[in-house]
Amino acid sequence: MNFEHLLKQVAFIHEIDKVKYILRKTKLFNSERNENDAEHSWHLAVMAIILAEYANEPVDVLKVVKMLLIHDVVEIDAGDIFLYDTNISHTNTAAEQKAAERIFGLLPTEQAEELIAIWEEFESGETMEAKFARAMDRLEPLLQNISNKGGTWKEFDVRYEKVLEKKGVIAKGSEHLWAFAKELIDESVKNGILAVAD
Amino acid sequence: MNFEHLLKQVAFIHEIDKVKYILRKTKLFNSERNENDAEHSWHLAVMAIILAEYANEPVDVLKVVKMLLIHDVVEIDAGDIFLYDTNISHTNTAAEQKAAERIFGLLPTEQAEELIAIWEEFESGETMEAKFARAMDRLEPLLQNISNKGGTWKEFDVRYEKVLEKKGVIAKGSEHLWAFAKELIDESVKNGILAVAD
Repeated sequence: MNFEHLLKQVAFIHEIDKVKYILRKTKLFNSERNENDAEHSWHLAVMAIILAEYANEPVDVLKVVKMLLIHDVVEIDAGDIFLYDTNISHTNTAAEQKAAERIFGLLPTEQAEELIAIWEEFESGETMEAKFARAMDRLEPLLQNISNKGGTWKEFDVRYEKVLEKKGVIAKGSEHLWAFAKELIDESVKNGILAVAD
Repeated sequence: MNFEHLLKQVAFIHEIDKVKYILRKTKLFNSERNENDAEHSWHLAVMAIILAEYANEPVDVLKVVKMLLIHDVVEIDAGDIFLYDTNISHTNTAAEQKAAERIFGLLPTEQAEELIAIWEEFESGETMEAKFARAMDRLEPLLQNISNKGGTWKEFDVRYEKVLEKKGVIAKGSEHLWAFAKELIDESVKNGILAVAD
């Protein structure tokens, strides 16, 4: 039997194990330790399945899940960029594009092209699927920071106005989830776990 | 706005963070540390997307992915059972059923019922989706053990005959993947990382 096609896929499956080593700034829901990208991607994919009913328009859930499962694979080469980083823009960088080509490029050509296209669609954030996937990516750390009584907001002195600006992206994917998130953010100020700007 | 429905979903999203603490016997592809259930579930879901073309019959990929993302959630209450454990059967135990009812039961009723049904379908292993999902669950640790030059086979003195017996389940999901897996297992004996029975 010829396993040439499959061996390329196995090389990719092997390579992406490295996603388990990439630590995010955000901590697990009980603050114990930083979350890694594999755990994060798993959690977002489950969230998308659970919360799909709230998308502003009906979404192709499988496509959203694919986006979320692979969205951080490029960080194997390009590293994680903190949402509130003030030096590096958290957009589709040249390093990320190169990483996508190398890592997805381990797969057979047609599959590599499909996954690069899905990753680019996520990064562009134009389609309903991408908007909803990106909403998940913003919602999870918000829930974690609240669970952690401030989390990265306190640790990196992130203020209310900045949180509102960054999390507002949730509305593009789901007005309902944004209404909920907004309420959580406002409550966080009242509860003293999120400071307002000086 | 009424968030009652959503609050139940958020309670579930919060609860399943515990999956990140459940350690498997198998180690990451480079032996560094044990893999946790969230990382494992993420890897299996990506594998299912990549390898779906090899299923013996066409599968509903979204359903397979749902199964894989949530199949270990019951271990929050019931714990992980090692595939080669000789004391406890690795089947749908009463403890796991009770766990499924408690954990998925955090969700709104209709969604809880849907996810319990998907989990039960995976456990029963009768449908093509369940067979293919279970093939992924057997294939990943096989690749890890080979990458780890023996891994849990050496650590727990598991022999060739037992591996063949347990991994044979892959054939129910994919004859092609089983032919590949069988070749890897045979090579492992030749390479001295898997012993035959005395």
